[in-house]
Amino acid sequence: MAGRTWLQHATPITFGLKCAGWLDGTLRARARLRDAVADASVLQFGGASGTLAALGADGEAVTTALAARLGLRTPDMPWHVERDRLAQVGAALGIACGTLGKIARDLSLLAQTEVGEARDRDEEGVGGSSTMPHKRNPVRAAVALTAATRAPGLVATLLAAMVQEHERGLGGWQAEWTTLPELLGLTSGAARTMAELLEHLVVDAHAMRARLIESDGYMLAESVATALAPSVGRDEAHRLVEEVCRAAIDGRQPLAYALLHDARVTHALPPQAIAQALDPAAYLGTTATFIRNVLARYDASVTLA
Amino acid sequence: MAGRTWLQHATPITFGLKCAGWLDGTLRARARLRDAVADASVLQFGGASGTLAALGADGEAVTTALAARLGLRTPDMPWHVERDRLAQVGAALGIACGTLGKIARDLSLLAQTEVGEARDRDEEGVGGSSTMPHKRNPVRAAVALTAATRAPGLVATLLAAMVQEHERGLGGWQAEWTTLPELLGLTSGAARTMAELLEHLVVDAHAMRARLIESDGYMLAESVATALAPSVGRDEAHRLVEEVCRAAIDGRQPLAYALLHDARVTHALPPQAIAQALDPAAYLGTTATFIRNVLARYDASVTLA
Amino acid sequence: MAGRTWLQHATPITFGLKCAGWLDGTLRARARLRDAVADASVLQFGGASGTLAALGADGEAVTTALAARLGLRTPDMPWHVERDRLAQVGAALGIACGTLGKIARDLSLLAQTEVGEARDRDEEGVGGSSTMPHKRNPVRAAVALTAATRAPGLVATLLAAMVQEHERGLGGWQAEWTTLPELLGLTSGAARTMAELLEHLVVDAHAMRARLIESDGYMLAESVATALAPSVGRDEAHRLVEEVCRAAIDGRQPLAYALLHDARVTHALPPQAIAQALDPAAYLGTTATFIRNVLARYDASVTLA
Amino acid sequence: MAGRTWLQHATPITFGLKCAGWLDGTLRARARLRDAVADASVLQFGGASGTLAALGADGEAVTTALAARLGLRTPDMPWHVERDRLAQVGAALGIACGTLGKIARDLSLLAQTEVGEARDRDEEGVGGSSTMPHKRNPVRAAVALTAATRAPGLVATLLAAMVQEHERGLGGWQAEWTTLPELLGLTSGAARTMAELLEHLVVDAHAMRARLIESDGYMLAESVATALAPSVGRDEAHRLVEEVCRAAIDGRQPLAYALLHDARVTHALPPQAIAQALDPAAYLGTTATFIRNVLARYDASVTLA
Repeated sequence: MAGRTWLQHATPITFGLKCAGWLDGTLRARARLRDAVADASVLQFGGASGTLAALGADGEAVTTALAARLGLRTPDMPWHVERDRLAQVGAALGIACGTLGKIARDLSLLAQTEVGEARDRDEEGVGGSSTMPHKRNPVRAAVALTAATRAPGLVATLLAAMVQEHERGLGGWQAEWTTLPELLGLTSGAARTMAELLEHLVVDAHAMRARLIESDGYMLAESVATALAPSVGRDEAHRLVEEVCRAAIDGRQPLAYALLHDARVTHALPPQAIAQALDPAAYLGTTATFIRNVLARYDASVTLA
Repeated sequence: MAGRTWLQHATPITFGLKCAGWLDGTLRARARLRDAVADASVLQFGGASGTLAALGADGEAVTTALAARLGLRTPDMPWHVERDRLAQVGAALGIACGTLGKIARDLSLLAQTEVGEARDRDEEGVGGSSTMPHKRNPVRAAVALTAATRAPGLVATLLAAMVQEHERGLGGWQAEWTTLPELLGLTSGAARTMAELLEHLVVDAHAMRARLIESDGYMLAESVATALAPSVGRDEAHRLVEEVCRAAIDGRQPLAYALLHDARVTHALPPQAIAQALDPAAYLGTTATFIRNVLARYDASVTLA
Repeated sequence: MAGRTWLQHATPITFGLKCAGWLDGTLRARARLRDAVADASVLQFGGASGTLAALGADGEAVTTALAARLGLRTPDMPWHVERDRLAQVGAALGIACGTLGKIARDLSLLAQTEVGEARDRDEEGVGGSSTMPHKRNPVRAAVALTAATRAPGLVATLLAAMVQEHERGLGGWQAEWTTLPELLGLTSGAARTMAELLEHLVVDAHAMRARLIESDGYMLAESVATALAPSVGRDEAHRLVEEVCRAAIDGRQPLAYALLHDARVTHALPPQAIAQALDPAAYLGTTATFIRNVLARYDASVTLA
Repeated sequence: MAGRTWLQHATPITFGLKCAGWLDGTLRARARLRDAVADASVLQFGGASGTLAALGADGEAVTTALAARLGLRTPDMPWHVERDRLAQVGAALGIACGTLGKIARDLSLLAQTEVGEARDRDEEGVGGSSTMPHKRNPVRAAVALTAATRAPGLVATLLAAMVQEHERGLGGWQAEWTTLPELLGLTSGAARTMAELLEHLVVDAHAMRARLIESDGYMLAESVATALAPSVGRDEAHRLVEEVCRAAIDGRQPLAYALLHDARVTHALPPQAIAQALDPAAYLGTTATFIRNVLARYDASVTLA
């Protein structure tokens, strides 16, 4: 290993917990979008200026019949210049793009050659470079990241368009016409592409384990401090472990080695306790419960759907 | 009157219907914001990387106790990098700003000196011009319009910030820190200022009536076409009235005069029917029901609150 | 006149000055866009990763030849992930949309039936309402206002897309593909439509003059205060005129009448000085110079083009 | 090495070329910002409505004197409602944030523990984790990435604010008040922080070299195809090398090994030519010229400044 420095890695998590986080956000994004669409499924029917005057006394009856035929709810009054429900649909689409973009960002980071913990499947003709025979581009992640890059500006347009004049917006209304369909297309494209990517995701458990080994125990420094805390106090434990880390990093030692050679540590923790504290599989806390919770919600959503 | 041209006015509506539209949007904006805040009132507690590993077996119990003490819901799992619920709060704030901005835009148009149908109350020291002794600026409407101008970009920031890396966003997370509070401040300022403006709004019914009279009946052209339709067919009625309008505008005649002198019209409609068709108070359609519907929802919301 | 209130009108300006302001902004918008396009007309040619390695020693020569053939400048180095010049083009387009939108907003306000000072020409089949025979919609202004509503979000997308990864952006690069062409289309459509609108604009000088008369002199209150200032001091003049305005507004008097009946005013200003101060044509200050300046710049730009 | 897959790496570049790209963008960002500020350094002075009427015949002289005293240019006419030059300053700030954000993104990717090619210096008290003794957070990169995340929405606000009404914008004008200062603060903070980061950047040439070695030659596949092209044609060379790559990846062989054992390759290229094609230092193309060009521009800019 070429030197040893402070890590950017936090304490280790399982890949399952990461996936549970993606699922957690995606379930909410889907539910939010369904709610927003249901909420916006309201008939807009008001005639020239929202009074239905041309229908005389029949306005209410025609409204009810028309809504029924279109499968839409009847509004309390026409909403031609109150565009909040469409803006809400746009926002729900934008948030869905953000949620999918976060998954794509994570996957693009995991797929980096230096990391290699997960990647899109190799497929003839997908993502090949036109000039570099050895290269595959993460094109599916790019679709979702493009959507996440474009959606915020489009949602901003829908919000800006809400300030419409009197009974007919000038410019604001027309600005919705292309913007909402674009948001729908982006979200739908991102969702479908991420579904394809995730369904066939190549997960490299070996690389994940290798990462833990290469980290020489440093990712578990908090675990050691936690183990030391009952004996020396929480603050002192943190300070002590940071000091050991610093010296060990300078001396290019694995953390286990440095801990076992520091009397202040070994005075408080026997070797097997140090080994136990450095075992990533033993430092997962509430992970299993978290995953179970999210999967239960997913199962319920599938049953409902 | 200086000439007569095609109008931009649609068929007339009552000021009550306009207010009902504002209320309709505002009631939804308030409900949406409450829902979003309730939905986002979820504890975020995950330790270093979302596993609560430092709490050993106590993660779930501590989570439950902490959520109870803070009056927040317990999440299925930590959500440090799934920011959709905060983005949803931001979107609800942005939509509320749009709804308030629409009211402010309408009021600024109504308050134009040439229109003068509604305006903020005169108040010593509010909106006075520093150089023009005769002038009052619509400063309260400006507050809401400023909020509606700024909110879309801030919501876009929150959406862009959702694409966070792994278990800790770099830049995205920090971008929320000032943006969400700014959105809260803008919405709160716009809501309070519009409440003040509307509570003391000076409504000039005389000016509204004068507008109808000055329009020489043209605003009711659709009403005449509707009255003619049973006799001559809908398309022909529209064509005929447009032709009469065109000639009358060129000849600078009130619409009533032109209609009463067109044999095709008088053949189908007796004078009293023409007069009836030109009465704005008789061409309000479903207006009363619409207003009643929205007021009923408002009443229910007040009872609930 | 139905009552008299504080005005929202500032001191009067000529329609020529308003047009000069539009031209002033438009000339800058056009120049800025030309500069940005010229600045961005730089060859991007770098091979797989920006080194032109596959060309061996010929990279520079091929670059030069290719740029010459395409009529582009040779860059100092490939710029595949430095997108600032494209973002600058996008910003120049967005600013142009804002400038055109401001003209359209002004025109839509001037075209209001209650104002009627300027409007798009009447044209068979343009802007007619499908249900209201008497109505014409300002469709050309709507095109520019739509562009001005949509452009800010699209420019934001281009800026957000700048943060590209290493030698190939993932998502950021692809987000430009549709966004820049949309901005080009919006700007081009807004420019062409506003050109059509302005070329045939119907300007109603009679209505403009009528507005001045209807204002009963109040728009010139600053002028009176300015005339009084040498005698009573600037602050006292402002206070005094505001007091006279207040009483005259309450008493529904023209300002001239109120001034001529206030001894403090007549003590300082003889009647003909009051009349002079209330003449809008005599209170135009530097207007003619401003218009001349802008027209000179326009003339120069035409000669150059 | 845990398996061998298609790489995401393009052909290799030097770290110097990457830095040259950052510098290239930064030099333009700085020049663009200076130009925009210079362009916007124009006096706004128009009195109540842009005519300077209260100054009588002295408008032009006072304007000239005031501009001189403030060190600003004299405008052709007042620009209170033509905000394009301020929007241009905002856009230049937003583009600068994007350019700085791109550097920060690259550095955050290079600083990943798995990559480790460059990182912020270790500093007592900067970026330490509160719970993880072994961890350092890239806080300086976060500042620039936060700016790049927030700037697009703020620029969008300035553009949306351009559509101002008549001689005084309502809402649009006021929206600039906080937005432009925020953009200035973000850009200035990002620039200063990135300057600190880059000045003391820890560059790990050993890690960079190790990356090339670990890639087993695959990054140079294009180089091999280029070397083969004269013998077998460009398309066939690409196809052949991709086929060799595929088999070698499946067989977990270094590319050199696979090439030396493929008769179609060795028939066209002797072993020393293969070795030469696989030498990254020999496959840098025009890199040196590119770097020289950008440094020359930097030198010129320093001399000028």
